[in-house]
Amino acid sequence: MSSSLRVLPLGGLGEIGKNMTVLEQDGRIVVVDVGLRFPTPEMVGIDLVLPDFAYLRERAEDIEAIVITHGHEDHLGALPWVLRDLGDRLRARVYGGALTIAMARSKLDEHKLRDVELNDVEPGESIELGPFSLELVHMTHSIPDSSAVAIGTDLGTVLITGDYKFDQTPVDGAPADVSRLAELGREGVLLLCGDSTNVDREGFSPSESVVGPHLEEVFSRCEGRIVVTSFASNIHRVQQVVDAAHALDRKVALVGRSMRKNVGIGRNLGHIEIPDGLLVGPREINDFPDERVVIISTGSQGEPLSALRRMAYRDHPQVQLKGGDTVVFSATPIPGNERAVNETVDRLYHIGCDVITPREAPVHSSGHGYAEEVKLMLNLVKPRYVMPFHGDFKRLRLHAQLAEAVGVPAEDIFQGENGLPLDIDSRGARFGEHEQSGMIFVDGVEIGDMADVALRDRRMLSADGIFIVVVTIAEQDGSSVADPEVIFRGVPFLDQADELLEEIRDTVESSLTRAASEEIREVDLLQQVLHDDLAKLVYDRLKRRPMVLPVVVEV
Amino acid sequence: MSSSLRVLPLGGLGEIGKNMTVLEQDGRIVVVDVGLRFPTPEMVGIDLVLPDFAYLRERAEDIEAIVITHGHEDHLGALPWVLRDLGDRLRARVYGGALTIAMARSKLDEHKLRDVELNDVEPGESIELGPFSLELVHMTHSIPDSSAVAIGTDLGTVLITGDYKFDQTPVDGAPADVSRLAELGREGVLLLCGDSTNVDREGFSPSESVVGPHLEEVFSRCEGRIVVTSFASNIHRVQQVVDAAHALDRKVALVGRSMRKNVGIGRNLGHIEIPDGLLVGPREINDFPDERVVIISTGSQGEPLSALRRMAYRDHPQVQLKGGDTVVFSATPIPGNERAVNETVDRLYHIGCDVITPREAPVHSSGHGYAEEVKLMLNLVKPRYVMPFHGDFKRLRLHAQLAEAVGVPAEDIFQGENGLPLDIDSRGARFGEHEQSGMIFVDGVEIGDMADVALRDRRMLSADGIFIVVVTIAEQDGSSVADPEVIFRGVPFLDQADELLEEIRDTVESSLTRAASEEIREVDLLQQVLHDDLAKLVYDRLKRRPMVLPVVVEV
Repeated sequence: MSSSLRVLPLGGLGEIGKNMTVLEQDGRIVVVDVGLRFPTPEMVGIDLVLPDFAYLRERAEDIEAIVITHGHEDHLGALPWVLRDLGDRLRARVYGGALTIAMARSKLDEHKLRDVELNDVEPGESIELGPFSLELVHMTHSIPDSSAVAIGTDLGTVLITGDYKFDQTPVDGAPADVSRLAELGREGVLLLCGDSTNVDREGFSPSESVVGPHLEEVFSRCEGRIVVTSFASNIHRVQQVVDAAHALDRKVALVGRSMRKNVGIGRNLGHIEIPDGLLVGPREINDFPDERVVIISTGSQGEPLSALRRMAYRDHPQVQLKGGDTVVFSATPIPGNERAVNETVDRLYHIGCDVITPREAPVHSSGHGYAEEVKLMLNLVKPRYVMPFHGDFKRLRLHAQLAEAVGVPAEDIFQGENGLPLDIDSRGARFGEHEQSGMIFVDGVEIGDMADVALRDRRMLSADGIFIVVVTIAEQDGSSVADPEVIFRGVPFLDQADELLEEIRDTVESSLTRAASEEIREVDLLQQVLHDDLAKLVYDRLKRRPMVLPVVVEV
Repeated sequence: MSSSLRVLPLGGLGEIGKNMTVLEQDGRIVVVDVGLRFPTPEMVGIDLVLPDFAYLRERAEDIEAIVITHGHEDHLGALPWVLRDLGDRLRARVYGGALTIAMARSKLDEHKLRDVELNDVEPGESIELGPFSLELVHMTHSIPDSSAVAIGTDLGTVLITGDYKFDQTPVDGAPADVSRLAELGREGVLLLCGDSTNVDREGFSPSESVVGPHLEEVFSRCEGRIVVTSFASNIHRVQQVVDAAHALDRKVALVGRSMRKNVGIGRNLGHIEIPDGLLVGPREINDFPDERVVIISTGSQGEPLSALRRMAYRDHPQVQLKGGDTVVFSATPIPGNERAVNETVDRLYHIGCDVITPREAPVHSSGHGYAEEVKLMLNLVKPRYVMPFHGDFKRLRLHAQLAEAVGVPAEDIFQGENGLPLDIDSRGARFGEHEQSGMIFVDGVEIGDMADVALRDRRMLSADGIFIVVVTIAEQDGSSVADPEVIFRGVPFLDQADELLEEIRDTVESSLTRAASEEIREVDLLQQVLHDDLAKLVYDRLKRRPMVLPVVVEV
């Protein structure tokens, strides 16, 4: 009987974020990446967005392994929720590079999930996972220990690149393992699932190591304090900031919880070296002259509670910025964060700081390869089939065009979407039937789905507020036994509140009278009558539709 | 007695939007522009944001005139609210160019403000307004009839540029009146308040008329239908789309309410010419072959209810897009709209449309002059003092640097902010004391200020929802006479709702018992006790802080 293979993306296609893919063969499953994304403003009050992993709920016992390509939230962040949800039925181990696993451990510790087996994997090591084999291939990206994942199957190798660039001069001197990729290509790769993030940029991305000299050049022109903000997980960027500060005889202070945590993890694993005596604590910053200090801070995305945002709004306990200070954004805004970043930048200008962003000087380099790198990957790996990953629909299409440009036949390129499985067997490859996919919301400690009525209610509450009208009636005859209580919240600018409250009380009386005359006595029906009458009155008066909530109490 | 002049910006400084300026001399006032801006996502449920014009509330009788530079919302949009709020005490007329006044009239009609005197002003015409004189100077911008405003005062001329570019080849053949600006400069300008929107771009902005040939070139490569989206008020852009369609023998359909309205106004005033028989109605689109149609649509900013957004989500009654159609974004996203625009674009890719934005082809030109145009303005006008207008703090600072670069002494350049008046007399110019300024929110038909507790409530409601607990007690002894009613809204994922409701009822009982033992009988105090106990319980169970609203009814 010939084997068949299913590759089912549950996230990361038609979007940027929450990457997650299921590989399935002979009823056994390997999951590659379990990422999250951050909510958009319409998702009122939601904390995080996870891929809908309903497909795995009934299949927990079938999962051989969860493999993580690298330690970024959009590849790793959903792990605690998935593990907790699948619970004891899941016996799979989690695999990844050393830093990835260290970051996963830190995350699971925060969620008190301490008895999960996490396994460091060395690139090149081969691991048997039921009918699959697993090998990590070393790649370069904006976080150390990034890997492509090669999954061996009966039909051939599936290569999921994760996020990558072909950096020929990375900061740690270890370029992507192009020879192993080429070897896999010669052996024959069945399917390539590659990163599409920067397919719309021409040429090759600049090396991470070009950023350091530019940072040093910018620093050398600064006379006051310097604040550099970047992603806390970009350990090699932090290294370059440290090196530039050291070269110019400035002390370095780390500000922001995740910056301190990630640098700690990075130092333990030898990914970052900081000369003795260079680091000073946030409370010691003011002990040094302005021109002797570099502060490395979180907040490059304008996050509301981040250290830099608080500095910009003059609300940081240790760092009070002033004219003459320079703030360097060694990062670009993730799409959707532009406004928050611009607001932060403008508050800094208002304080009188100078601000350097990647528009002013090349103080940032992307971690995702450009179009020529995507072509290089295709040419190294020479896949039979191509399914672009990690991108919105525009980027998936551009990636498909690049694949055609390097000679992949159009019919072997599959522009997929979340929940659409690619089924491969000896006769070929084709899309199957849609599986459940989409978003799961994290709200506090609970998770649930989009359809939850609570979100519709929240949108209504946030748009127009709420009127609560408590009506107390006698059980015997339905007559009102106390004045109605009217409470409103989130209904603004009620100048004529007294008048409206009077009208509401009148409406309650007339509704009750009418209900009595129609012999409506059941509480639910009574509430419905009151709701309809009151909602009409409120809309007439305010031209808004707050939630109107009549509560009938029988005594 | 020597005269003194006050220039008080109430909006547009330290922000992009809601431009409004007060000029004051001998107790008399002229207001230049009354713009609005759109709310950010934190302003939950707010429709529009106006400048706080409290400064004018007590002074309505002192206002000689309201002058509008051009018909964009950020210069004109607050007019109905300001007029209605100042009411009968305001006897000032409204002045502006012909199209500006036509758009103001249409806006006031919608607000049923029909007895306001609106006056067309021809550029060059001189109008006496009490101690002031008024002259409009023709400028070029992304809407016809844009003007700089020259206000003559006892101390000299104040020139407020409005939004402008120095387009040497505008579509209507009428470049900005540089000779009048030069003449004003020779006569002596006291203060220049200039647009800073594009000071961060080097060189000169490309002319509007270069867009047309690029549109035609893009159109000529399209085989299916073409949808072009741009700002509805950009009449000359619409003209160029019409011309390109006509040249390629395609019919034109206008889709979206504001597009149809603005083109109507523009045609009446002769700003746009459409050949007979070229226009077809939205319902006739399907009567023509795909390659014979251009649709001009609203929605260039990804607005939720706009025509293009609805097309992208397959929800437009007349236009069903499909693979092979091309959508041209002849506009760039206003800062903050990037995400909404990107979402729209990606939905279009998902449908299979091709999408052309200003990144792919020069199908847009900004209406705001770049750095060299700002310098040209400074050199033409040769002002004694400079106060940069229309920009966030970064742009105001860059504008000040440009002024220094062309030789304005640093001490004559005033980097202001909203509410900070510049006071000028024969001895010089200086900032005065801060006046009230900020934001006023429009919510439905009412307006109010930021501090309104309703907005804090809404944020709380939208983040975590609400618990309402109705407790009915006997007036005589405070004992509970009915089971507590517990209602929640916007609290998601309540799997263990029954259990929690039980606990809430228990807590109510124990709170009442405790209150009775402490002889707490007053309803407000009782509600406070219940609130504290219930909020603690809810937080313990849900790790969220919904609004907890106990209502005590005495019977």
